[in-house]
Amino acid sequence: MRESPRSGTLPVMKLQNDTFIRALLREATPYTPTWLMRQAGRYLPEYNQTRARAGNFLALCQNPNLATEVTLQPLARYQLDAAIVFSDILTIPDAMGLGLYFAEGEGPKFERPLREEWEIRDLSAPDPAVHLRYVLDTVRQCRQALAGSVPLIGFSGSPFTLACYMIEGRGSSDFASVKKMLYRRPDLLHKILAVNATAVTDYLNAQIEAGAQAVMIFDTWGGMLSHGAFHEFSLAYTKQIVDRLTRQREGLRVPSIVFTKGGGGWLESIAAIGCDAVGLDWTVDIGAARARVGDRVALQGNLDPAVLLASPQAVQKEALAILKSFGRGSGHVFNLGHGISQHTPPEHVSALIETVRGSSVAYH
Amino acid sequence: MRESPRSGTLPVMKLQNDTFIRALLREATPYTPTWLMRQAGRYLPEYNQTRARAGNFLALCQNPNLATEVTLQPLARYQLDAAIVFSDILTIPDAMGLGLYFAEGEGPKFERPLREEWEIRDLSAPDPAVHLRYVLDTVRQCRQALAGSVPLIGFSGSPFTLACYMIEGRGSSDFASVKKMLYRRPDLLHKILAVNATAVTDYLNAQIEAGAQAVMIFDTWGGMLSHGAFHEFSLAYTKQIVDRLTRQREGLRVPSIVFTKGGGGWLESIAAIGCDAVGLDWTVDIGAARARVGDRVALQGNLDPAVLLASPQAVQKEALAILKSFGRGSGHVFNLGHGISQHTPPEHVSALIETVRGSSVAYH
Repeated sequence: MRESPRSGTLPVMKLQNDTFIRALLREATPYTPTWLMRQAGRYLPEYNQTRARAGNFLALCQNPNLATEVTLQPLARYQLDAAIVFSDILTIPDAMGLGLYFAEGEGPKFERPLREEWEIRDLSAPDPAVHLRYVLDTVRQCRQALAGSVPLIGFSGSPFTLACYMIEGRGSSDFASVKKMLYRRPDLLHKILAVNATAVTDYLNAQIEAGAQAVMIFDTWGGMLSHGAFHEFSLAYTKQIVDRLTRQREGLRVPSIVFTKGGGGWLESIAAIGCDAVGLDWTVDIGAARARVGDRVALQGNLDPAVLLASPQAVQKEALAILKSFGRGSGHVFNLGHGISQHTPPEHVSALIETVRGSSVAYH
Repeated sequence: MRESPRSGTLPVMKLQNDTFIRALLREATPYTPTWLMRQAGRYLPEYNQTRARAGNFLALCQNPNLATEVTLQPLARYQLDAAIVFSDILTIPDAMGLGLYFAEGEGPKFERPLREEWEIRDLSAPDPAVHLRYVLDTVRQCRQALAGSVPLIGFSGSPFTLACYMIEGRGSSDFASVKKMLYRRPDLLHKILAVNATAVTDYLNAQIEAGAQAVMIFDTWGGMLSHGAFHEFSLAYTKQIVDRLTRQREGLRVPSIVFTKGGGGWLESIAAIGCDAVGLDWTVDIGAARARVGDRVALQGNLDPAVLLASPQAVQKEALAILKSFGRGSGHVFNLGHGISQHTPPEHVSALIETVRGSSVAYH
């Protein structure tokens, strides 16, 4: 366990609301803290306005002033217990020179995906202070703007999830090229993953150094692997990162959260890598998950984001069911089981936040 | 438990190879039987030739002569232990009048998806003898052509999976319309599912009557539901079907297999509905699955179909790992964890079949 040196620029500020950090450390809290994956996003009209000013999504990510603005927008509307720095999971491969872009109405793509063996052999981890400075600047500005109100979360894609896009060049329903490499040339995939693990470690530690008070690793595609392949090609590299994360900063513990979409079958192994919390998608019963791993990690999740499309009544009913399933005591951060849909009516989010804040008190 | 009357046309024929049926009933077999989901498909050049003669996929499904021809094609190439009637999971909604079609290069679509409440109220189960006669004719012809060599599997989509396409009108990455109905108007979804459960029951029993010697229910989309919603909106209706399936025919037990893609977290509940076997996708470790439910059901699966894209060496290695993980004894039908990819080299399938046939003997 390493301790990073104190920054000269950031004051050691006591958080006005530390329920999120406490819940991640399974310490007592007066209620269940809440934040939402992709809480700064297209379901908010004010986000769309800022995005229009930026020109496009990527320009918004790369502009620290505007990225800070959208990071704070959901906190102005809702009683959220954490902010998450506005960025994308694919900033690292972009910093490696693969050329991230977003075609209108489509997912992320890379101009120069890894096609040749020499490209893989030449791959190296970027220096975040140079190539990802815009993210670190955003982190610093967000921390300043939050002024200790709630903690700020930094994040990255997992080494395997980054590799999926780096190899396939875009999203996919089956990532056939990635799987083909995995089974035919595991050595090449391991080489990419090793570089990615170093890159993610450096990136997350730089975000912590810049002011992130918790970090989350998104393993969006690990869940499409077989049991054996998940452990060898995804979790082993996530563990390398967690092992090397800065654990303490400004005198406070910096908790880490690992979220594998579709990883419900592997909660025990994920909980064993040393992270403080495990994110759950909506397919898992959170009470059952707690029985399996709740003595080792906190749990974050896990409302189906589709519930937010339905009605305030449905939102209330399903949120209460999750609180009840988790049961009494600390160690639960309420969240969705996946990013919020752009089609979510903002008033349904109000219903969610109010329900959790109001009704969770009885469990604490 | 109902018994259907003996057919006058089909002789009670002893199967020359009954390893598949025996394994489903967890009786001793000399080796682990194998068949592959979508084994009659686009990876086979002879399939593409027959399909070209039919004109398109749907015309092929609806032509019993040609559908029988493609059903038998993989058995001419490989030592498979079962045939599966060539058809589509969406024949039922088509028979309900929704207008199934396939745009070139895209998945299935419906011309008239369920949009209005009155359309849902008016929905009724089709008479398979009238509206799905082409499937029953194919079943009869396949049985005749197989001449007792290996058993014939009949199949259907699950009530929930059918409902997904009936409501959404096509495939989807999140089936947002379906989920919206589920949370906002569960009564409407329950109405559709009740009709579908009756329709699937009648359809599978008609296939058994026509000669299917085992049946499989494909719950392709149940795995995208939350824990609670899966049990209420998918599994409860699959159970209704299993409860009402014809159990015996021609003096032999007709085993049933339930496959929920992404259902690895719910194996215990799936195994408890009365089916003989549970299909596993590739994310589950089959040995762990056996420890959980192998005293109640047989297991079918679960090689990642992507392995077949890689190399014969990779195929051999991964197939051996699955055999080893399942371990000694009966109750395992080897299969993929999802349908075979159209990009699979046919010789990789040979490597798979030979590996399982040759190496599984040691476990029996």
